[in-house]
Amino acid sequence: MDVVGLTDDVTTAMRLAGSSGLPGLVVAVGDSFVVVPASQVLRVALPRYVLDDPALARVWDEASADRLAERLTGLRIADLLGALETGTDVPGAVVDGDATAVEVAAVMAAAHIPLVVVVDDGVLVGAVTASSLIAYLSR
Amino acid sequence: MDVVGLTDDVTTAMRLAGSSGLPGLVVAVGDSFVVVPASQVLRVALPRYVLDDPALARVWDEASADRLAERLTGLRIADLLGALETGTDVPGAVVDGDATAVEVAAVMAAAHIPLVVVVDDGVLVGAVTASSLIAYLSR
Repeated sequence: MDVVGLTDDVTTAMRLAGSSGLPGLVVAVGDSFVVVPASQVLRVALPRYVLDDPALARVWDEASADRLAERLTGLRIADLLGALETGTDVPGAVVDGDATAVEVAAVMAAAHIPLVVVVDDGVLVGAVTASSLIAYLSR
Repeated sequence: MDVVGLTDDVTTAMRLAGSSGLPGLVVAVGDSFVVVPASQVLRVALPRYVLDDPALARVWDEASADRLAERLTGLRIADLLGALETGTDVPGAVVDGDATAVEVAAVMAAAHIPLVVVVDDGVLVGAVTASSLIAYLSR
């Protein structure tokens, strides 16, 4: 699993997120981790008025993928976190290795995040996605 | 892509969501569609106090996967939508076939949803996930 840092640039992070197939970005912040859902990675690239009314996207000057990618150039992960309403104060996206299914579900549901990071004795051992937890629960 | 209806039961829907690998559930509501992120599918299965403080999951009586699955038995999708804070008034999760990348991103970002449904001339033609859009933008 790929983890990005606060000084990494957003386009590199997006490339990782796109290729990992994970539904979000895992960001190392100090000794812990924050998860930014993919939909919120996109948020930072859009003008405020488009977020307020997605219908205005159609009238955005040069409403193209190139224009969107261009807006992300030079931005760092720290800028992305700063631009999100939740900031870096998002509830923990970390569970430990002996967490129950209920604990994992509770963290995802409360934080509205599509994956949590599993850390055991300070070592990152992997991630669990909400989809995979659902598959496990409905087996 | 699998679509569930309001009268389908939540466990069947969870099984679909788990096996589809999609980061959310697509629900047909009247002539339109609503997307429930996987993390919010889990929400309905948890007691309120666990959502308020995920740390309490550990002390939940029988905090097991079985107990969680049991709480979902007999619930319908309509109950799930009713239990979510956003209700069925979630912003549209639908774009049409000629939507630009910016429009798709705007809908995902504004509605905090990990996928949108593509409908052309009233016919459901597929879905776009936020991860795949990010991969496309960072190509």
